[in-house]
Amino acid sequence: MIKILIVGYGNVGRGVQMAIERNADMELIGIASRTPERVKKSVGEAVKVYDIKEIANWYKDVPADVAILCGGSKSDLAQQTPVINQYYPTIDSFDNHSQLPEYFHLVDEVAQKAGKVSVISLGWDPGIFSLERVLANAYLPGSRAYGFYGLGPKGGLSMGHSDALRTIKGVKDARQYTHAITEAIDEVRAGKNPEFSAGDMHSRECFVVLEDGADAEKITAEIKSMPGYFAPYKTTVNFVTQEELDEKFKGFPHDGCVVAAGTTGSANNSALIEYHCTWGSNPEATAQVLTAYARAVKKLTAEGRKGAFTILDIPASYVSPLTREELLAKMM
Amino acid sequence: MIKILIVGYGNVGRGVQMAIERNADMELIGIASRTPERVKKSVGEAVKVYDIKEIANWYKDVPADVAILCGGSKSDLAQQTPVINQYYPTIDSFDNHSQLPEYFHLVDEVAQKAGKVSVISLGWDPGIFSLERVLANAYLPGSRAYGFYGLGPKGGLSMGHSDALRTIKGVKDARQYTHAITEAIDEVRAGKNPEFSAGDMHSRECFVVLEDGADAEKITAEIKSMPGYFAPYKTTVNFVTQEELDEKFKGFPHDGCVVAAGTTGSANNSALIEYHCTWGSNPEATAQVLTAYARAVKKLTAEGRKGAFTILDIPASYVSPLTREELLAKMM
Repeated sequence: MIKILIVGYGNVGRGVQMAIERNADMELIGIASRTPERVKKSVGEAVKVYDIKEIANWYKDVPADVAILCGGSKSDLAQQTPVINQYYPTIDSFDNHSQLPEYFHLVDEVAQKAGKVSVISLGWDPGIFSLERVLANAYLPGSRAYGFYGLGPKGGLSMGHSDALRTIKGVKDARQYTHAITEAIDEVRAGKNPEFSAGDMHSRECFVVLEDGADAEKITAEIKSMPGYFAPYKTTVNFVTQEELDEKFKGFPHDGCVVAAGTTGSANNSALIEYHCTWGSNPEATAQVLTAYARAVKKLTAEGRKGAFTILDIPASYVSPLTREELLAKMM
Repeated sequence: MIKILIVGYGNVGRGVQMAIERNADMELIGIASRTPERVKKSVGEAVKVYDIKEIANWYKDVPADVAILCGGSKSDLAQQTPVINQYYPTIDSFDNHSQLPEYFHLVDEVAQKAGKVSVISLGWDPGIFSLERVLANAYLPGSRAYGFYGLGPKGGLSMGHSDALRTIKGVKDARQYTHAITEAIDEVRAGKNPEFSAGDMHSRECFVVLEDGADAEKITAEIKSMPGYFAPYKTTVNFVTQEELDEKFKGFPHDGCVVAAGTTGSANNSALIEYHCTWGSNPEATAQVLTAYARAVKKLTAEGRKGAFTILDIPASYVSPLTREELLAKMM
């Protein structure tokens, strides 16, 4: 059995707990949290809950094969992973693309010193979409791999952009749906390998609940001009009641695809690769990906490996519950 | 530079030659063939051509990093790989799924003894579709991953089934198009993880040129009752002239997808993964995949690894032309 410690008990942490139950070769050894009393109320007596600040005092009694870091805020991970990796092999979902190289080297140094494995930046994107980008580019040299999000009519819920809306004064609650621009996907499929700005690929749709007396027009202007999050995109702002928001826009649905189009041979025959994910719950799907890689961490550790790894460094056979013989007979 | 020896100069061998030209870090060191005179006529003076039967006499003068085996008939590989792997690390596309475990162990023994790497059963399926099946099953425990071929209106050309048609007495030429059954894909997408027989998933469409005086009705009956190839499927047989066949059914187009549907969490939120490939030329696309893994063979060899490998054993970073720093900065 692979013994897993969950660190952080938000949507992803709860998703990892449920994912462990779906994998017959895994067991939950405990949950570590900054607010253990809150977590205890939620999980009851069946699961052991630890105070993460006290890790030095209890880690010897909690022989986890891997700690899966599900920090509520992704910015926590830059602090958490280096600490927890002193005690356990770790998996995290650090998702700041621009800081990723720096983060890799920071964690690698810590993990090398600690003699432990640390898989960073796992999940959907970065994560399985990164893997598909690299493979598609290798199979179709000269092509680019593009990521699109929110393919269906409702689009996909972006937690980061929803959080950004909620920071605005006068906004009581909000949810943001990302929409892929269909014409842009078609251009990629046609093999044009176009140069896109961010706004060419996606638009953003906001559903906002105002606080009493807030100025809708002013808030709309503030949203549309928010750098990075909304300014580069065609953004629409809809005002709704809290009841509408809770009823029509619940859950965490998301979908997306990696698309790469190139050619083969000297006659330039077309070649197209598309990888699509459609999640009823983005945090639960992310959690299932994180959990699958617990197998890889245990195998890498058993081999005496150490240091930082990304999804690009891990063979598929390390992630599968099947034996080599089963893989050869059933899955090849 | 990665020095590549092509063994076998049919459609896939020519595809590998063109793929090498698309990869700046690779060069063609020569072509080995059972019919070197035929190949020399085709490639001219620019490429060195060797007689594969004489390999013991010339291998020392041909320092290839990897030999990519492109045997015209897939059944050749069971004989060829163990011989050539004595001299070079190899890549092959052995595609008999039922004999694959036995083949792996045969090659592994040879490769271990020779101290060389041998990547077997690479290409589209087995190959990149095998990889996607294993990953989807790991991310969505309890789901099955299904493969469908011939998604577009024209379907996809099956070389194996076309060859089978041509073995029938009275058939002058023929091509077979595979069609996925749309309703079956929809059942999988709906998360039903259905039990399918082969005929539930695909139908087969034959375009046949008769020899003078051949009996169309008798040949139709013979095709439809051919075990394995056509008997399990809804099969339609169309008779055409050679001119029609050459004009309307040229090239080697094919497409297909891996589909896996499952759920996440305790509320069973839906989760769907689809991987699609659309090839203008199936043998050229297969060749580009084989060629990309030449990088992995060189890296594994440099690490002192030996024995048989499948695509499931090889991390994506080994297949990419990018450095670790480039991968972290651009592709994660």
